[in-house]
Formats: sequence, C-alpha cells, structure tokens
Amino acid sequence: MLLTEPHHAAFRPPLPRLTTACAPLTREVRVVNEFGESRTTAIPAERDLTVYVDKRELVTLMTLGAHPEWLVLGYLRNQRLIESVHDIESVTVDWDVGAASVKTRHGIDAIEERTARRVVTTGCGQGSVFGGLMDDIDRIRLSPSAQLRQSDLYRVVKAIREQESVYKSAGSVHGCALFRGAEMLLFVEDVGRHNAVDTIAGWMWLQDPAEMDGADKVFYTTGRLTSEMVIKSAQMGVPVVVSRSGTTQMGLEVAERVGLCTIGRATHHRFLCFTHPQRLVHDVVPPRPPQALAP
Amino acid sequence: MLLTEPHHAAFRPPLPRLTTACAPLTREVRVVNEFGESRTTAIPAERDLTVYVDKRELVTLMTLGAHPEWLVLGYLRNQRLIESVHDIESVTVDWDVGAASVKTRHGIDAIEERTARRVVTTGCGQGSVFGGLMDDIDRIRLSPSAQLRQSDLYRVVKAIREQESVYKSAGSVHGCALFRGAEMLLFVEDVGRHNAVDTIAGWMWLQDPAEMDGADKVFYTTGRLTSEMVIKSAQMGVPVVVSRSGTTQMGLEVAERVGLCTIGRATHHRFLCFTHPQRLVHDVVPPRPPQALAP
Repeated sequence: MLLTEPHHAAFRPPLPRLTTACAPLTREVRVVNEFGESRTTAIPAERDLTVYVDKRELVTLMTLGAHPEWLVLGYLRNQRLIESVHDIESVTVDWDVGAASVKTRHGIDAIEERTARRVVTTGCGQGSVFGGLMDDIDRIRLSPSAQLRQSDLYRVVKAIREQESVYKSAGSVHGCALFRGAEMLLFVEDVGRHNAVDTIAGWMWLQDPAEMDGADKVFYTTGRLTSEMVIKSAQMGVPVVVSRSGTTQMGLEVAERVGLCTIGRATHHRFLCFTHPQRLVHDVVPPRPPQALAP
Repeated sequence: MLLTEPHHAAFRPPLPRLTTACAPLTREVRVVNEFGESRTTAIPAERDLTVYVDKRELVTLMTLGAHPEWLVLGYLRNQRLIESVHDIESVTVDWDVGAASVKTRHGIDAIEERTARRVVTTGCGQGSVFGGLMDDIDRIRLSPSAQLRQSDLYRVVKAIREQESVYKSAGSVHGCALFRGAEMLLFVEDVGRHNAVDTIAGWMWLQDPAEMDGADKVFYTTGRLTSEMVIKSAQMGVPVVVSRSGTTQMGLEVAERVGLCTIGRATHHRFLCFTHPQRLVHDVVPPRPPQALAP
C-alpha cells in the first residue's frame, strides 16, 4: 500500500473508479433553408443513459454525453440518494448499450421508498426530483459573509461569453460553470441544464473537500433561476448564482429563504440582483447606457 | 333535456365540468441593478398544483396558472392516462390549496402500474413521462398530404412576434400556440413549456373533434424542438412544428420517423427546415440578406 499510494491517501477513503466514456458532442445534419436550398448544420448530440444502481434500474437521463460519469455521480448526490462519494465503488458507462452501472459499497437504504414520490418541476432536463424538493432547504447554511465583487461578476460574464462551446457551434444546449471568484474551474454543457449542474456537482464531489468549500464559489447558468437551480447551488454550498436569463417566483422565494444571492439578466455590464444584494460588492461603476434627453 | 341542451348535444357525450380558477400571472419584485439602485421589475408567477385523480395523488406540476383546468386535461391526455375527454366528469382547481381534483367516470385502469416507470427527458417543465415515451409513436399516422405554405409560416412567426405576452412583460416563460394555417387559435404561456403544450392539448380535447383534426394545424413553440415536443405534436395529429430555437438529435430522429416537419430558428424571414421539407411549399421568395462581396 505504502508503495503505490501517496501518503495522504491513508487519510481519505478511496474515490470511485470511473470509466471515461466519450462520444461526439455534435453531428452534421442536412437542412433546407428559407430559399429552399439544402445545407448542412451542426446539432448537439443527445443520448439516453439508463442508470442502474447495484443492478436496479433507477432512471433514464437524456444527455449530450460529455461527462457521463460525473453526471451520474452528481445526479445521485443532488437527488440525495447517496451521502458520500466514498460510498460509491465504481461508475461504468457504456455508450454501446446506453447504460451507466453504479456499484455502491453498502447499497442505498430504502431506495424503493425514497424514489417513489414524483414532483414535476419547472426547469429543463431533469424535471423529476425524488422526494420533497424543499425538505432539506431549512437545513442549508450558506456562509453569511460570502460576497462577490461586481468587478469579478463582470469577469465571470466575460469568461462565459468567450468560452468555446457546443452552444456556439450547434445551439440548443444549456451551459453552466463553476467559478472561484473570477477563475473558471469547470464549464459543462448538456441538452438538459439539470444535467449540466449535476455534472458540476459530481465533479466537485471528487475534489478535495478542503478545496471545494462552496463559500468562495460562484455558479453560472445560461438557464433561468428556477427553484431547482437555486436549491442545487445551495446544496453545493455556493452562495451566488448568476444567469443571463431571469428568475421564476419559486426560484426567488427559495433564494430569499436560504440566503442565496441571485443575479439575472447578466450581459456585459448590465444585471439585476433579485435576492440578497448585500452579497454583491459594488466596487466598480459601469458606464451609463446612452439615454434620451428629458423633454 | 331538450329544453336546456342544443340538439347536437344528443350526439356527443357530455364534456367535463371545469372550474375557471384564475390568479395573477405576474408579480412585482424589488431588485438592485448594476448601479446599486433599487428598482421594481415583473416576474412570472409560479405555483404548485397537485393533481389528484379520483382522490389519488398523481403529480405536482409547477405552473404559471393561466389555464390550470386545460393543463390538467392535457396532462392526462398526453401522458395517455385517459383515452377520451368524455371519461372525465370534472376538474376542480382550488388555488387556495394548490390542488386540482379530477373525477373520472370509470377510474383509470392499472393506474399504479402505468405511472411506475420514470423517464427523465430533455425538455423544460414536465421532464417526467410515465411509461415508454416511444411506445406509441409507430402507431401515429400523420396526414401524408398536409403542407404549410412559406407565406403562412411567415404569418405564424409574425403573429407570435406581435402577441402580447407575459414573456414581454416578465420574461422567463415559454410560449406555444396552435394555428390553423396562419390563423392563431390559441396562445399559451407557462413556466414550463410542457405545461404550455399540455394546455393546448387539453383545450383541443374540449373542442368539436371535426374542427380539431390536426392535419391543417401548425404548432409553434418558443422552446427547442425536443423529442417530447415532437411526440406531443404528433399525438395531437399536428404535422408541422415551428420554433424560434433549434433542434436536438432525438427531436430530429422522432420527427423523421413519424413524418413530422420541424422548422427551427424561425425569425422574420429566416428558418431551417430540419425534417420532411416536402411539407413546406416555397410560395414566396424572401429577401436575400446583404452579403459581403466575394474577394
């Protein structure tokens, strides 16, 4: 053991073994345009991935397929079916059969019961959330002092704008990203935006927990600030969510309640802070848009 | 009976009794903008509606709440839980408790079994579809001769552009509409776009079937052309789906298979026809966009 594993491994239980299944993210298709001309264009790939936990079928996810192993980990985490990443022995994805096989170390307690209740939610992608969506939120404690500087918010928005993406080449996908201040740690796209955030949650689970404290993180999503996005961000301990889109009423209410700062309609210098504006430090003054003269 | 019902009612079983629950579609909230100034803005309302069928809890939908009774009817129809609208005696929506109570005439056969399988799908809103999504599609026969004229397509896009909407005032909702040729029959918005299409399906169910043959209809959605959108349109017998957004791979594959014409990226004069372009009649030539001179 001492010969093959670094010293600190003794202090941390092993991480799951993961395949690295890959598959093309876009494909070319023939289309006809408004002049009746035949053309080719790229569309995002979309595959079904059926998740089996200890040989029991759990769910089928429709995914772009960029990081299926992280997606499965994050799905199990965000559905609160598994408490610790160390409880998972392996995740094996095989695109030939569209299956992700999860092997746990100790099984999942009362899995039948915990996957019985269905709530159809607003967001894109994983509309179905097992169990009561709101059950846990009063237990969430986000760092009360965590703040984001407006100058860093502008760097976040700029980094997203400049990011190479499936969206730019093929459209029809949602993106999310995790930032530490203005530094982008991970950028993920998927056909369903819940898959994208779950993939980030799965990736975070695999990192050193000391590095992955959420308090200094910012979560970006191209989608709306719905209640599920807010809850998933809060579950990861991330106190600020930024979007180019707007908010829904439930998203706003949940963010109010858990102390999360939601910033929507963020493009270039413009944005609206919907909740907990005390987390936003106005350290720069953006240029005023040109205005019509008063009559 | 003859005194209170019109003559033709004798030939058609009774329609369900429906409440007409209403509630405000937007609300004003305080926000802070990029200058640190406090402002108000409108956001769409979002409510949870738990559907009970014969006193059994079926699902909780998150909805804007514009037409909850049609939504519930369309949900039951599109999930293929109830075959005929005449099998439903009443739908009673009470926003005070967030409940829709459905009373059927004869119950739903094997409801436990038919709601057991879960597929998490790509689209927005009702991600969860009971039973196999694709099980029925090979039984769908869309009118082989149905076509849409390009001039009518442009009228559809223009009607949507000019439609007064929650989206214009508050953003963060999806819209759908049903057209007969270029005539808009119904426009529906919801926080989840599957709710919007289900509401249209519910409304269609209530109309005279002779009027609601899908062959001369066009379905418009602001969302992506995902497989569920294509399937729901095909289930309504509507052979053409138009969107301002793009397509996903599964959406394209299902549309190919059922013979449905999908038209995406439709804005002003531009569009891409992804599938079955023979349904589109090029009766007008749009203006060419200005082009850079060849070198």
